[in-house]
Amino acid sequence: MTLRLGDIVAALAGEFDARLVGDPDVLVERLAPLESASAAELTFLSHPKYQGKLARSAAACVVVGPGAAAAAMQRGACIIVDDPYFYFARITQLWKREHAPSSASGGTALHPSAFIDPQARLAAGVVVGAFACIGARAVLDAGVQVGAHSVIGNDAHIGAETRLSARVTVADGCSLGERCIVHPGAVIGADGFGFAPHAGRWEKIEQLGAVRIGNDVEIGANTCIDRGALQDTVIEDGVKLDNLVQIGHNVRVGAHTAMAGCAGVAGSATIGAHCTVGGGAVVLGHLSLADHVHISAASVVTRSIHKPGHYTGLFPIDDNAQWEKNAATLKQLHALRERLKMLEQTTDKASGKTEEKS
Amino acid sequence: MTLRLGDIVAALAGEFDARLVGDPDVLVERLAPLESASAAELTFLSHPKYQGKLARSAAACVVVGPGAAAAAMQRGACIIVDDPYFYFARITQLWKREHAPSSASGGTALHPSAFIDPQARLAAGVVVGAFACIGARAVLDAGVQVGAHSVIGNDAHIGAETRLSARVTVADGCSLGERCIVHPGAVIGADGFGFAPHAGRWEKIEQLGAVRIGNDVEIGANTCIDRGALQDTVIEDGVKLDNLVQIGHNVRVGAHTAMAGCAGVAGSATIGAHCTVGGGAVVLGHLSLADHVHISAASVVTRSIHKPGHYTGLFPIDDNAQWEKNAATLKQLHALRERLKMLEQTTDKASGKTEEKS
Amino acid sequence: MTLRLGDIVAALAGEFDARLVGDPDVLVERLAPLESASAAELTFLSHPKYQGKLARSAAACVVVGPGAAAAAMQRGACIIVDDPYFYFARITQLWKREHAPSSASGGTALHPSAFIDPQARLAAGVVVGAFACIGARAVLDAGVQVGAHSVIGNDAHIGAETRLSARVTVADGCSLGERCIVHPGAVIGADGFGFAPHAGRWEKIEQLGAVRIGNDVEIGANTCIDRGALQDTVIEDGVKLDNLVQIGHNVRVGAHTAMAGCAGVAGSATIGAHCTVGGGAVVLGHLSLADHVHISAASVVTRSIHKPGHYTGLFPIDDNAQWEKNAATLKQLHALRERLKMLEQTTDKASGKTEEKS
Repeated sequence: MTLRLGDIVAALAGEFDARLVGDPDVLVERLAPLESASAAELTFLSHPKYQGKLARSAAACVVVGPGAAAAAMQRGACIIVDDPYFYFARITQLWKREHAPSSASGGTALHPSAFIDPQARLAAGVVVGAFACIGARAVLDAGVQVGAHSVIGNDAHIGAETRLSARVTVADGCSLGERCIVHPGAVIGADGFGFAPHAGRWEKIEQLGAVRIGNDVEIGANTCIDRGALQDTVIEDGVKLDNLVQIGHNVRVGAHTAMAGCAGVAGSATIGAHCTVGGGAVVLGHLSLADHVHISAASVVTRSIHKPGHYTGLFPIDDNAQWEKNAATLKQLHALRERLKMLEQTTDKASGKTEEKS
Repeated sequence: MTLRLGDIVAALAGEFDARLVGDPDVLVERLAPLESASAAELTFLSHPKYQGKLARSAAACVVVGPGAAAAAMQRGACIIVDDPYFYFARITQLWKREHAPSSASGGTALHPSAFIDPQARLAAGVVVGAFACIGARAVLDAGVQVGAHSVIGNDAHIGAETRLSARVTVADGCSLGERCIVHPGAVIGADGFGFAPHAGRWEKIEQLGAVRIGNDVEIGANTCIDRGALQDTVIEDGVKLDNLVQIGHNVRVGAHTAMAGCAGVAGSATIGAHCTVGGGAVVLGHLSLADHVHISAASVVTRSIHKPGHYTGLFPIDDNAQWEKNAATLKQLHALRERLKMLEQTTDKASGKTEEKS
Repeated sequence: MTLRLGDIVAALAGEFDARLVGDPDVLVERLAPLESASAAELTFLSHPKYQGKLARSAAACVVVGPGAAAAAMQRGACIIVDDPYFYFARITQLWKREHAPSSASGGTALHPSAFIDPQARLAAGVVVGAFACIGARAVLDAGVQVGAHSVIGNDAHIGAETRLSARVTVADGCSLGERCIVHPGAVIGADGFGFAPHAGRWEKIEQLGAVRIGNDVEIGANTCIDRGALQDTVIEDGVKLDNLVQIGHNVRVGAHTAMAGCAGVAGSATIGAHCTVGGGAVVLGHLSLADHVHISAASVVTRSIHKPGHYTGLFPIDDNAQWEKNAATLKQLHALRERLKMLEQTTDKASGKTEEKS
């Protein structure tokens, strides 16, 4: 499985104005990181700060931005393009297209073991894997792929070219847009966590909403998106959710927001567009995040954030013995502040100052 | 799909003393939140503090408590009842019952593709979905529903009216009580995480216990409850676990305790009854929590808690630049306390005081 | 299901020099913890500090180390051995071997409902459960067990004696070594979370690497290990991952490292050998951890750690009212330090000192 350098550049010429410096007939066997790329591999320089590593790279060719062109040319073959990381993303897509064993020939391919309700409506080019279940009145648009063991509920709707991997659940009445990718084990449309406390017990509030997912959304393995209590949980276009993410009921996630692994968003929170939420971060319920808000990993959002920016709240890691001392002292922090204030007053009085301290 | 206001009140009259103010013939098309309810929708006022929103609501009817009755009647139709949130929960249940497409007719319905071991015992009214697997000697009581692709191990026992959604695993020998609900991807009875360290390796301790789950328990999507090492992991009646929750081996969760998404309880911890554990919170192993303990989201319980109450431990989120300054200073907190103490002694000596500071 | 004390000791005599004090004909019905063991149960004393509990134990027999031998003998029957916890681990394995209903007879047993691609290669003794899917060119070595509903992708390789439980996914091209155990819902080889930002959208970087897992690895329920972007994600020999753990793309986890439930490792991090990562802990991307590093539960590793040791970073839990005061003050911590510094300078000036404070 090899690609000619010249063919790579030609394949992307419609979208990019890239210049290949070097022999277009060189064959590339694999894509590889800059540090480890061999003479048969193509790589890229994502950021000028790594330019120092260029000279030592044995790669067949390096994709670089204009600022690194001189250094790259001195090393050997290179492709010069305005946004080398984006260009490299397109190369990975090209690579996958060329090399993936095309299990489906483009026509409809329904595995004989799959269970498809007679009332389901499957458009042209739909591929359904082994033991998949498609419920009554489910609608699968053109080019949808449903992996082995996936379960699509009654009245669900899957948009064109969306791919569900193996073992995905889309519950009754939920919908996905076009060109989405859903990884194994993801659960879309389980009941939200809603109970009314009554006489020391939890009385179930039936979850009557559904989940509506836009176009070009990617959903990671074992991630859960709950159905709404009364209205729908909404994931807008272009959202990317990593693995093991939890999205509570009635949440709205704005377009092109990305959330890393193990992040959680509690019920009825509204997250803006173009946000990022770091791994393991938690957004509490009923809060709002403005567009372009960035939450660091493992931080807990306890209040709405109305201003774009970068927000963090995590305890700095330390040697355990040091941590123990500081953590113990932290429990007296308010008292320490009071003592400091008193001391300042004593000292100020002694020196005749009267400034107010908080 | 509509319900008459008068019929709703009549349906719940056995349990509630509710008063409908307005035309019983009005038809309700949907349930909706107070803010967005249209003239065809029924809503509720969960808490008197939202009373200000009442006047602006276009809802067909609002369920309210006695305290909000006057304001509600001024607006239009309302149902007045002592616990409006609980009443509304019952309405959602009524709604679901009336509108859910009844896939099962009440008789036994075993999907022809399911694999049911000849030694399994299925009571009357059991429904088994496509590709489900029921192991040897498994016992499914009356009215149990097993979703598509669920796997029930050998010797497992599922109590009456319990519903397993699609893709649930109940491992060998585990049991659930009556009227439980288990959402997709949940794993009940995987091995606990038990190893004896030996010569730099981890030697597996076989997990010989099982999982015993009480009545009326709800278990979220992709939540895991491990089997015990020697004895059983126990989840008592009425416990509600959200999605992606981890319950370690030998844990006991007391009756009517609720745990939000991504919470984790390490092995051999004992959690009391009527507790709540917030999303992403962690309870370390071998600890005990008394009844009526409430743990905030993302807090880490590092010691047993013997007194009912509300406990929290999370780093407050802040603008990243501010956080960096405070987090860096936090690493010197113990040293700062020492400096403050010294300063106090200096000042006290200067002023002749002798009080002890910690 | 009982075992004779004498038979237990005999079965392990090849590996251990253990001494049984008491009647070898006593029959043991179960294994149990020290506190609750009845006269029909075998137990162990894992640590000398629990020696005080010995006298009160009603157990049929207690496994103890040499240091507790005298106290144990005074109580009754005991087995004295150098490493009682390791010895007990072996007893649990013996117990499981003797008592597990042997579903497989040792020969190949392929459930008739399983889908096995004609190009897959299954060695002798492979067991495949109901509705399992084995992809094209997949290789399953001798003694592999594939649980019900598991999906093994094209070109995947499963090493000898490895057991996949029900509902496991091993994606295309991924490999596991020998004697591994994978619990339900685990997803090995879903796409890593890789996107190039471009014009406000996320452009997918196809994940062209795979996952390579060594020998004797155990992987918990619903745990996810992502495939590499260009090269492989690697889990070395003897690693133990608990449930709901997230391993990002290109990560390398060193041999015999253990990670507790809900832990997460972001992309391209390298974790050394013999490390432990506590429950809910997060390791950020591109970091390195040396061998023998131990991270406390719920701590966030934000920088590489080059020195073996025990590291912690979590906010101490407190009564909520106390926490609120301290958390609020924490936001002024840097300012408090500045005020303290100023006060020290004032005081020093007054007393004529000139020492530098930070």
